[in-house]
Amino acid sequence: MIQKLIANIKKTNAPIVVGLDPMLSYVPEHVQKKAYEEYGETLEGAAEAIWQFNKEIVDKTYDLIPAVKPQSAMYEQFGIPGLMAFKKTVDYCKSKGLVVIGDVKRGDIGSTSAAYAAGHLGKVKVGAQEYAPFDEDFITVNPYLGSDGINPFLDVCREEKKGLFILVKTSNPSSGEFQDQLIDGKPLYELVGEKVAQWGEACMGDSYSYVGAVVGATYPEMGKVLRKVMPKSFILVPGYGAQGGKGKDLVHFFNEDGLGAIVNSSRGIIAAYKQEAYAKFGPENFGDASRAAVEAMVADIEGALETRTADHS
Amino acid sequence: MIQKLIANIKKTNAPIVVGLDPMLSYVPEHVQKKAYEEYGETLEGAAEAIWQFNKEIVDKTYDLIPAVKPQSAMYEQFGIPGLMAFKKTVDYCKSKGLVVIGDVKRGDIGSTSAAYAAGHLGKVKVGAQEYAPFDEDFITVNPYLGSDGINPFLDVCREEKKGLFILVKTSNPSSGEFQDQLIDGKPLYELVGEKVAQWGEACMGDSYSYVGAVVGATYPEMGKVLRKVMPKSFILVPGYGAQGGKGKDLVHFFNEDGLGAIVNSSRGIIAAYKQEAYAKFGPENFGDASRAAVEAMVADIEGALETRTADHS
Repeated sequence: MIQKLIANIKKTNAPIVVGLDPMLSYVPEHVQKKAYEEYGETLEGAAEAIWQFNKEIVDKTYDLIPAVKPQSAMYEQFGIPGLMAFKKTVDYCKSKGLVVIGDVKRGDIGSTSAAYAAGHLGKVKVGAQEYAPFDEDFITVNPYLGSDGINPFLDVCREEKKGLFILVKTSNPSSGEFQDQLIDGKPLYELVGEKVAQWGEACMGDSYSYVGAVVGATYPEMGKVLRKVMPKSFILVPGYGAQGGKGKDLVHFFNEDGLGAIVNSSRGIIAAYKQEAYAKFGPENFGDASRAAVEAMVADIEGALETRTADHS
Repeated sequence: MIQKLIANIKKTNAPIVVGLDPMLSYVPEHVQKKAYEEYGETLEGAAEAIWQFNKEIVDKTYDLIPAVKPQSAMYEQFGIPGLMAFKKTVDYCKSKGLVVIGDVKRGDIGSTSAAYAAGHLGKVKVGAQEYAPFDEDFITVNPYLGSDGINPFLDVCREEKKGLFILVKTSNPSSGEFQDQLIDGKPLYELVGEKVAQWGEACMGDSYSYVGAVVGATYPEMGKVLRKVMPKSFILVPGYGAQGGKGKDLVHFFNEDGLGAIVNSSRGIIAAYKQEAYAKFGPENFGDASRAAVEAMVADIEGALETRTADHS
């Protein structure tokens, strides 16, 4: 899947990922209304609303982007119907040729991690049959439990050619409470980064590993360090746009080959129609607003990367 | 819910929790066979098998135990039907008066943590209606992202009188890779424990907080330290039995009032019929084997606590 991700990035020339994190408050009223007319103001109605919202955004952007990142929590909050919308979204995005990163931030140990890996990336056996329940291409994973927690995921990644993005330095203001603490003069996130590089060595694609890392756009200086610590890991970079990260902050997350990072924007794309810059589209054309926001984001990052190249020459 | 947990512990005189982590390999053949006859060798069939397995164990043990802890991964691995079995298990256990700890180990930031909290502990709004999608009593949470990740859970806990168990020191062999690293001479798990105590102060029941911690039975000396660091937090203790923890290792996790800890056993109880000690029950009577295993576990812990009291007097 790292190969498909790289191929998709090269094809679109857009190292970005659209976060499909559909809060109901992002879904335009006419979409909600239609869903409630059919299913009532129920969990099924909410699930239908977010599914229709996602579908329109994907239909309007899939040719411009390499990947999407549905956020599990936004679906789980609507219970079983919500999770059905998650599954439908994963399947639909894959049918459009997109790489799907399930932002599930799971993490456990032993047979429990193995069960998460089977459910999200691999297959499960029932009698003589095999099923791939959620079948995302990548998932995000939490490293707090150490190698026992990660190894079962690596086993499935090797078998299925799937991938991980392991939390290293998250984009939020309080991420430093634990992640920045110094251990023999080195912050914890760097220690985790070293482990990610090590775990990744056992799961290599052609030039990048199947094992990537999450490092927030809001910490560009740390991104610079971590880029060197994990040279063969793709970095999934949240925090662009709504959380404050800008294109120029992102250049350090990329390698000299122009690869190695994929920048996420969620609200900034999917709720673009609510921003002043895209208000002209109106809620009726929220998908077109998202398309325009994708184009602007790609241009911002491209510009920053070109400036870097110019500085170097 | 901390009040209900304490009341249930006092009523049963059993500070334990049964981990409902139904791997298919634990489910006796006759239960699987029946489920597959009805639903085929499908995800629905697997979900029916684990649900019937759970139900029998709950029916045979609910009067002896205060709480259960279904492990999300074991249900997610069977996709949507698996999650329906999770929900059915939560509801059934609550109908039997048990406290339900959803072992979901979620953790994210801001609105995403809020969505997890709403989905698992709280309510979600759809138009003018409100729903409580999974409605567990407690869930387990991962602290790696810091306060931004925890605060949205605390808000819901205060509103709904629900609770958390935050991972502090996990029971697995490699938990020390990050958790034991020294920060100014103090291990990371202790720093996390101090935060748990602090987060817990804002969510107090009568004598214990709604915010508890996970500390593995396999690390009794660390349990001793953490007991003092978080005096008002209940400690959920995994690692008893199959993972090697024994009753005598557990005494340090309890406070002088005999409360403050709840010891989990999963495989040791739910797959008891596979152990030599309970083989006489046979797979047909797997529920009775689980009941006998619960009784033995309660006696083991009771004995250890009595010995401690005797030593003190």
